[in-house]
Amino acid sequence: MAKLDVAVVGATGLAGQQFLASLRDHPRFRVAKVAASERSAGRRLREALTDANGAFRWYAAEPLAPELGELPVEDAAQLSTDGLACVFSAVESEPARELEPRYAREVPVISTASAFRAEDDVPILIPQVNPDHASLLEAQRRRRGWRGFITPIPNCTTTGLAVTLKPLADAFGLRTVLMTSMQACSGAGRSPGVIALDIVDNVIPFIPGEEEKVERETRKILGRVGADGISPHDARLSCSCSRVPVLEGHTEAVFVGLGRKASLDEVRAALERFGQDGPASRLPSAPERWIRLQADPFRPQPRLDRDAGGGMTTTVGRLRADPVLENGFKYLLVSHNTKMGAARGAILVAELLQERGQLG
Amino acid sequence: MAKLDVAVVGATGLAGQQFLASLRDHPRFRVAKVAASERSAGRRLREALTDANGAFRWYAAEPLAPELGELPVEDAAQLSTDGLACVFSAVESEPARELEPRYAREVPVISTASAFRAEDDVPILIPQVNPDHASLLEAQRRRRGWRGFITPIPNCTTTGLAVTLKPLADAFGLRTVLMTSMQACSGAGRSPGVIALDIVDNVIPFIPGEEEKVERETRKILGRVGADGISPHDARLSCSCSRVPVLEGHTEAVFVGLGRKASLDEVRAALERFGQDGPASRLPSAPERWIRLQADPFRPQPRLDRDAGGGMTTTVGRLRADPVLENGFKYLLVSHNTKMGAARGAILVAELLQERGQLG
Amino acid sequence: MAKLDVAVVGATGLAGQQFLASLRDHPRFRVAKVAASERSAGRRLREALTDANGAFRWYAAEPLAPELGELPVEDAAQLSTDGLACVFSAVESEPARELEPRYAREVPVISTASAFRAEDDVPILIPQVNPDHASLLEAQRRRRGWRGFITPIPNCTTTGLAVTLKPLADAFGLRTVLMTSMQACSGAGRSPGVIALDIVDNVIPFIPGEEEKVERETRKILGRVGADGISPHDARLSCSCSRVPVLEGHTEAVFVGLGRKASLDEVRAALERFGQDGPASRLPSAPERWIRLQADPFRPQPRLDRDAGGGMTTTVGRLRADPVLENGFKYLLVSHNTKMGAARGAILVAELLQERGQLG
Amino acid sequence: MAKLDVAVVGATGLAGQQFLASLRDHPRFRVAKVAASERSAGRRLREALTDANGAFRWYAAEPLAPELGELPVEDAAQLSTDGLACVFSAVESEPARELEPRYAREVPVISTASAFRAEDDVPILIPQVNPDHASLLEAQRRRRGWRGFITPIPNCTTTGLAVTLKPLADAFGLRTVLMTSMQACSGAGRSPGVIALDIVDNVIPFIPGEEEKVERETRKILGRVGADGISPHDARLSCSCSRVPVLEGHTEAVFVGLGRKASLDEVRAALERFGQDGPASRLPSAPERWIRLQADPFRPQPRLDRDAGGGMTTTVGRLRADPVLENGFKYLLVSHNTKMGAARGAILVAELLQERGQLG
Repeated sequence: MAKLDVAVVGATGLAGQQFLASLRDHPRFRVAKVAASERSAGRRLREALTDANGAFRWYAAEPLAPELGELPVEDAAQLSTDGLACVFSAVESEPARELEPRYAREVPVISTASAFRAEDDVPILIPQVNPDHASLLEAQRRRRGWRGFITPIPNCTTTGLAVTLKPLADAFGLRTVLMTSMQACSGAGRSPGVIALDIVDNVIPFIPGEEEKVERETRKILGRVGADGISPHDARLSCSCSRVPVLEGHTEAVFVGLGRKASLDEVRAALERFGQDGPASRLPSAPERWIRLQADPFRPQPRLDRDAGGGMTTTVGRLRADPVLENGFKYLLVSHNTKMGAARGAILVAELLQERGQLG
Repeated sequence: MAKLDVAVVGATGLAGQQFLASLRDHPRFRVAKVAASERSAGRRLREALTDANGAFRWYAAEPLAPELGELPVEDAAQLSTDGLACVFSAVESEPARELEPRYAREVPVISTASAFRAEDDVPILIPQVNPDHASLLEAQRRRRGWRGFITPIPNCTTTGLAVTLKPLADAFGLRTVLMTSMQACSGAGRSPGVIALDIVDNVIPFIPGEEEKVERETRKILGRVGADGISPHDARLSCSCSRVPVLEGHTEAVFVGLGRKASLDEVRAALERFGQDGPASRLPSAPERWIRLQADPFRPQPRLDRDAGGGMTTTVGRLRADPVLENGFKYLLVSHNTKMGAARGAILVAELLQERGQLG
Repeated sequence: MAKLDVAVVGATGLAGQQFLASLRDHPRFRVAKVAASERSAGRRLREALTDANGAFRWYAAEPLAPELGELPVEDAAQLSTDGLACVFSAVESEPARELEPRYAREVPVISTASAFRAEDDVPILIPQVNPDHASLLEAQRRRRGWRGFITPIPNCTTTGLAVTLKPLADAFGLRTVLMTSMQACSGAGRSPGVIALDIVDNVIPFIPGEEEKVERETRKILGRVGADGISPHDARLSCSCSRVPVLEGHTEAVFVGLGRKASLDEVRAALERFGQDGPASRLPSAPERWIRLQADPFRPQPRLDRDAGGGMTTTVGRLRADPVLENGFKYLLVSHNTKMGAARGAILVAELLQERGQLG
Repeated sequence: MAKLDVAVVGATGLAGQQFLASLRDHPRFRVAKVAASERSAGRRLREALTDANGAFRWYAAEPLAPELGELPVEDAAQLSTDGLACVFSAVESEPARELEPRYAREVPVISTASAFRAEDDVPILIPQVNPDHASLLEAQRRRRGWRGFITPIPNCTTTGLAVTLKPLADAFGLRTVLMTSMQACSGAGRSPGVIALDIVDNVIPFIPGEEEKVERETRKILGRVGADGISPHDARLSCSCSRVPVLEGHTEAVFVGLGRKASLDEVRAALERFGQDGPASRLPSAPERWIRLQADPFRPQPRLDRDAGGGMTTTVGRLRADPVLENGFKYLLVSHNTKMGAARGAILVAELLQERGQLG
């Protein structure tokens, strides 16, 4: 099977680099174009990433593929989508408002930006959680008169929460969720990101807009898709989001009240077998399991568990009864915010859409 | 007024050193004796703190007072309590079971150990929260036939939580509390404490026994004292306790359901004026205010707020309505775990008891 | 004695805030004006420091004095120096090139910027090291036709090195210095400063321009002042400058070859008594001693020693013979880069100049 | 080729676990036995690694091979060496004094302990540096009347230094070396290792015995082997060893004076082609290159470079002329202290000895 050509927009940034690293040797996609702001445009990618001091500003663990380093960086505002199966957008929310509709008139856009997540005809896809929401993309196409569409992935803090709530909602119903996050620094990017003077030996208890995003997106992702939109799940959610001195991997302490009585064993079983038979489990980027339950009571730990399943597996531990909420349980989870929660999660969406015949 | 002589037991350890540092120039107490395990006994304190490599193992921010460095370290198992107004016990729970009753036969023992916290005739005192519980100490004396008594302070994670819940319980009633802690490394001491290989770039989501302690102790502290014991408060509590890469200062994210409807302003006012008129506010170690409300949404932060009020003030921030719990609010707090939550909290108890005529 | 009015330029930045904090309750100086870039100008300082999220961007350990918070922020490019005894400049090197000469036409400018450090008629003052170099300021005045002058303090990494080399050079002569620094993150400021993603669990072995600055400035500071300039010391220096995950306090590992044979005791004595009788030791900001020798072989440590003497004392430890260099010794030092190495060091210069009658 | 059976002694500790992880799927060796102190003996390895709280105390990045988890832990003091090709010893220096000669009477012992490094008939092997020193093992055998021998690897801080000095010594001669290390926490192990309270936001400038070890071992490794011993290299060395808040990977800032004039290009070339043709380069654990030169001036960084070549490559950067030493150069290096500097380095020695016919 010939690989499909794709573009990565925002390719010089942290999120864009993760797309480039994750698409290296991808069985279905080939990075044909890279684009960034006007400032970088016109140079080869390798040069655009080399600063005045000679530093090579590449931040992914895997090296930049040599042939990608030779690609010319195009001006995102001028990018031609001819011949592309889709565009991966890794730009900030503000430029996304302009750029993504421009591309979507011609081709599918899969985005890490939050710009369009709240719109009625835009699903927020996590392939192992709500693959059926992809059907809304056809409505979006029709309604907007586009050949493509825009489909964002969720906020990186939403992802692990939605992945673990989905099997519980399906098996037992879901009434209440109270979640406290201990988020990694990489979630804030690099421009300027979290500076050492603020976070070493410290916790920052506020991430503007984050709690509202997680509450709203989670209900939408767990909701029911209809012809023209999604009815959000009616569970009540409340979050408290903090930043901690961790490089990668979001930790979340979750208290959940289920819709009906369940035993610890039933809850454990629901989490463990989650998604094993779903369509997402056959995609190229799917890990062996979507949720891994840790028996060691000192786990999950972000440094030890973030890379489980290539960063695509959510690790859950310390599952125990909660004495406060009705049908209550509590647990902790670790989810890789810049792999499953960003570029690799978006690539997984592209794989799902390709499988469903919605790409290219 | 002549100062009262006191002893510090466990004086060579981290908690013991904090007693020595905090009692320096204390207006009412004078450290007359220091005791530790047999291993250190017989040497002067300064020598006992100097290891084979010549390192001086003193961990408090304030220097060791020269005259205390000259005190001979006594064997805790042989310590004579003659002439002492009280003993501050900073030993681990296991030796506390043996040592503390031995001292209490003669003099009051104020302890940071958990050994006796669960006993019926033992109050857990936080002077600004439950000074009236000190009346139970007379029952303890009578019942055990001791001249002294044992009164422990709470677990360091309980302290900040109880301080902030008390004004809410008093003003509005208290039904449900869900708390996630992000605890500092100093809470685990130094033997061996938390090692860098485990906590740098990481979160450890489990502290054995901690959640149960916080839940049980908080209910007892907020409870009602009777002639022979304490009826715990009937609020339901649930905790999730984690360790984060912070040196000092516990951060706690609290979700609380009140007994009746209250406005944000009412809740804010209750927290702010807490304890201003109570007996504890006139004690020598009392800070200007017991609770400080931070308007800056990025606060409280442990590194910036732990030393508020000399480490005796609990800082609260991000107070906001909670959409899940009935009459729900959420907030974060920072409390200094090795000051208000340890030695200085115990000294505050001694000051309260002295004021009430229960010491010496 | 009436206090002298001074201005702080760059008042909203990290370095400028340290001036404001350090001048609080200063016995000789009063902050009469604050200035910053046009962007902040026109607002009261407190408002200029409060960002769109409501965060109060104040970074000094000591709180902002309420009356300073009320000062209007003036546009640095328009600042009138009428009535000022001096200007403290805490701006970056580039704006310093423009602004500092503008002020110096009227009043003395004491600067943390590097812009003029290399000029022939500009001394780099460390009051306890080279107070006599202040005589060059009169030559500068004459030569440039200014009523004031510009006098920068050294790079923060130079300071501790020069302080410890000075007594050695005076007592024994100085031939060779090889220094490896382990520098704190605060040295890079906050815009953008060192981001957590780069420094947590890491060392960054390069700080552009730093090694050259330290080598050049140290020779100048240790040099001999003449009528029109300074003859740099002829010692050969070589540095290797790295950034480590430390918030405040530069650590430097020094290998030094003296001009003549000396015993360990002689070297120790020279360091310990350094500057006790010099003119700087009577200034208001002078600590009890300029150099403190640590006997504990595990010291100096930046977290434990940076605040010695209010951040004005350089702590030296592990002094021992070096087997490689002729008349060689090696030691480590810790110096507070944002106190003695920045604002407080500049204030000390102002105190010296005031004492010498060169201010106002 | 059938694999050779080996034993790992000290298998439950941090260093022992790295042997087990590194020997997984090794082409020539098979872990047939594991041994530890009496305390762990008698249980299966997996059980011996599980503590009372249910925590699985396994610290290598790679998981424990299931079949190794089933091996019974033998008492190191009773271990039978029958059928073993060699013993890998990962015990502390003190037990090594007893245990290693006991095993060496029968089989070769390759050790990470320092106990025998200073003895005349004991080489300290780094296969890419001094493979010819292995000839001394036959003299050791004869002299001690053993069937086996003891061959320790160097201290982990010595390794990277010796690797980078060797090509310089060979090509240009070597006169003087001044090195400042910034060492990772893993070098101190876990019992108790470096605690977070000591190292977060800090540098510890002393590691007892380390500087002497590095100076002595480096000269021995670079020395000339004779019939009965090794003549140490006559270069003069001086070290200053510090611990920094880094998990893995030692960084060293090196100033080196060569024996003759050399250009930067010549030095660079000598480093880059080091060991490409040596016997070690064909061993199974050999990386693509022993030394990698980084052109980016901000490298090497321990977090980014420690895993180069599977942790077997030493990364060198910032190579530049040094103005102080005769024929002087300076550079920084990063070497993985628990891979090339520990278990994998020892396995590389075993591979060399097997290749030379000195094993089994």
